[in-house]
Amino acid sequence: MSLLYIRRANQLVTLQGNNQKPRIREEMGELGVVEGGSVIIEGPFICYVGTDEGAVEYLSQSRKPVQTIDTEEKIVTPGLIDPHTHLVFAGTREYELEQRLKGRSYMDILQAGGGILSTCKETRLASKKDLYQQSVERLDQFLLHGVTTIEAKSGYGLTIEDEVKQLEVAKELDQKHAMDIISTFMGAHAIPPECKNNSDEYVDMVVNKMIPIVKDAELAEFCDVFCEQGVFSIKQSQYILEAAKRAGLKPKIHADELVAFGGAELAARVGAVTADHLLNISDDGISQLAAAEVIAVLLPGTAFFLREKAANARKLIESGVAVALSTDRNPGSSPTESLPFIMNLACLTMNMTPEEVLTATTMNAAHAISRSTTIGSLEVGKQADLAIFNVPNYQTLQYHYAINHVDTVVKKGKVVVESGILIP
Amino acid sequence: MSLLYIRRANQLVTLQGNNQKPRIREEMGELGVVEGGSVIIEGPFICYVGTDEGAVEYLSQSRKPVQTIDTEEKIVTPGLIDPHTHLVFAGTREYELEQRLKGRSYMDILQAGGGILSTCKETRLASKKDLYQQSVERLDQFLLHGVTTIEAKSGYGLTIEDEVKQLEVAKELDQKHAMDIISTFMGAHAIPPECKNNSDEYVDMVVNKMIPIVKDAELAEFCDVFCEQGVFSIKQSQYILEAAKRAGLKPKIHADELVAFGGAELAARVGAVTADHLLNISDDGISQLAAAEVIAVLLPGTAFFLREKAANARKLIESGVAVALSTDRNPGSSPTESLPFIMNLACLTMNMTPEEVLTATTMNAAHAISRSTTIGSLEVGKQADLAIFNVPNYQTLQYHYAINHVDTVVKKGKVVVESGILIP
Ligand SMILES: [Zn+2]
Ligand SMILES: [Zn+2]
Repeated sequence: MSLLYIRRANQLVTLQGNNQKPRIREEMGELGVVEGGSVIIEGPFICYVGTDEGAVEYLSQSRKPVQTIDTEEKIVTPGLIDPHTHLVFAGTREYELEQRLKGRSYMDILQAGGGILSTCKETRLASKKDLYQQSVERLDQFLLHGVTTIEAKSGYGLTIEDEVKQLEVAKELDQKHAMDIISTFMGAHAIPPECKNNSDEYVDMVVNKMIPIVKDAELAEFCDVFCEQGVFSIKQSQYILEAAKRAGLKPKIHADELVAFGGAELAARVGAVTADHLLNISDDGISQLAAAEVIAVLLPGTAFFLREKAANARKLIESGVAVALSTDRNPGSSPTESLPFIMNLACLTMNMTPEEVLTATTMNAAHAISRSTTIGSLEVGKQADLAIFNVPNYQTLQYHYAINHVDTVVKKGKVVVESGILIP
Repeated sequence: MSLLYIRRANQLVTLQGNNQKPRIREEMGELGVVEGGSVIIEGPFICYVGTDEGAVEYLSQSRKPVQTIDTEEKIVTPGLIDPHTHLVFAGTREYELEQRLKGRSYMDILQAGGGILSTCKETRLASKKDLYQQSVERLDQFLLHGVTTIEAKSGYGLTIEDEVKQLEVAKELDQKHAMDIISTFMGAHAIPPECKNNSDEYVDMVVNKMIPIVKDAELAEFCDVFCEQGVFSIKQSQYILEAAKRAGLKPKIHADELVAFGGAELAARVGAVTADHLLNISDDGISQLAAAEVIAVLLPGTAFFLREKAANARKLIESGVAVALSTDRNPGSSPTESLPFIMNLACLTMNMTPEEVLTATTMNAAHAISRSTTIGSLEVGKQADLAIFNVPNYQTLQYHYAINHVDTVVKKGKVVVESGILIP
């Protein structure tokens, strides 16, 4: 088997540095850039990262055949990681956007059977094959935008069998598609219509029926809860997440999106890996996330699409909270796979720097899905997941905005996107 | 020569309707959609637009060979038109974005030799060949995003010879590149550093030297002025635009971007074809634009990139002003060629509807560059400029945001983009 030799990167953005913990404060600005760099890959792993000269030296001591990719002055980064998606669902909701723009409120739309309930209905009706097919299109778009690993949540089934169906589809996609998928069980995404007057009954079902089944079938690694006013209370969320922890599922929380509800504080209390959204996090919540080393996963695309003010990334970073970024890919509030555009938004709407947004979609995103030892940086021994962008420097990814600059994507040592085209 | 037969569009967005005047109010919402539609092209012109059944009938009466493109449930629209770009310039300014995000003010950057002055300096130093090459990359990106005609302004030379150089490059690009380019002379884009204490002197040079040369060499069809506090005054702008009109150049104005300066009112007074930006237009300005039938060219990408509040599109539309949209492609305040993303922004930041944004980038944009009889809609006899987007309906262009959905682009009857790839 030949070595894959990627050379002459104008900038090799390695992200080498502290891998022990999510990166905070100034660490988020340190990208470990090599100017004029090469990566050499053997099988699915990286065996050399460094200068072009060093690579020539390395290859002179090897007798293996070499397949060369000349980057011609482009940049190379680790494959991007999206740590928060609702990948598997059926149907689209483009007519709701139109209605919202014409002045209809979300509550009107929900009461007319739209909103999350329409996705829930369609997902329940969909076959596994349908869900698989629709999700493949989304995964292909992610790859085309330089994303090589994503997290994917259930939560549009809201019955035992439909939640399992979503997670089984995610598992099959992880096995068959080039994308790596890390699964999160999120039975507590919404209160299903049939339980709307008795949410405790549904919570009991999540805890006593769903979590054990998900665990036994090894369908998820994380458990997430939509902890918000009018959805799941702090008490219910804590009950679910403690049960998840006992079952070996690591906690995540959709926290403080609509009001300062105490979701971040709960995340700290239960030792969540991440707290996500955080548009309305309290100052106390910020301190507690920092102290408990919970990663803040920010979703500026959702704020943009819902026309809300984005989270206060600067305050989080300056308070010592590690920040990761994600698309929040879902059919209602963020229908996009462009993590590179989310990085543009993070700069322009949250005042993050070009360095910080790259850390937030590579090493910190890897930590957010417990994969910091295998992906998130270009280092010898790590999985060979990387993206080549057709720009002269990483700053241009944020400057030349709303353009997909991806030229090549390598996943586990295999070229999966070439000249911006998916390789079948 | 064979006919080009594009069939089975899920939606054929024809934009058929009133072509006499820019479309206002409810007219902006009428897209003339044919469900299950075909377009037939002969040479550079459209010879059939309508239902799939009608196309079969049409072809049965022709003996010409046929090249068929099956859209497979995609949508077809007129080629998009960008009526406001600063296409021809040298250099990039990605480090300024980084400095702005790190808290440096634009004035600081300008005083350190950055901002528009750095682009002016680089453009003056650049050879025509360099300017041509750098502009080709931008034109290719425009094509890849479904744009088949753009307006392009001079204004980074600010000397007679450098303004002429920019316009000559635009003319050569118009002739050699697939893109149609409509040129605008904008000597009054900024006060050049060598005249900073005597702007009247520079204005006299624009009027008495530059305009006659531009006119004699047929280098432009429009004349534009940056009419703004601290740049060109109302009086100076009017003086330039009246002179331009006498020379046969049609007026355009960069108006009311930073403050309510009276630029819109001036546009009405001089009978400008368009008034552009308008973030701070007064109520009086709005009425006067409507009465004088001046088109408002809105640039939400610029507001987004500069992190300002977008123009009040709804008030303009509801007051009877025809609205067009543009990227404002330039190296300082809007470095993007994605007109489709500008449409996303127009929906999400200016509350325009999916129908209005399509009118604003086709028929109304055609009017904004005086090309309404030849492009902007799919009609028999019009130039065969069209885009095929890989979405099931036009609403999805706005819903599935920040993704380039362009599959195929046809320019003057020739396929120039196929499966999202530029054809050399
Ligand atoms: Zn979510
Ligand atoms: Zn402009």
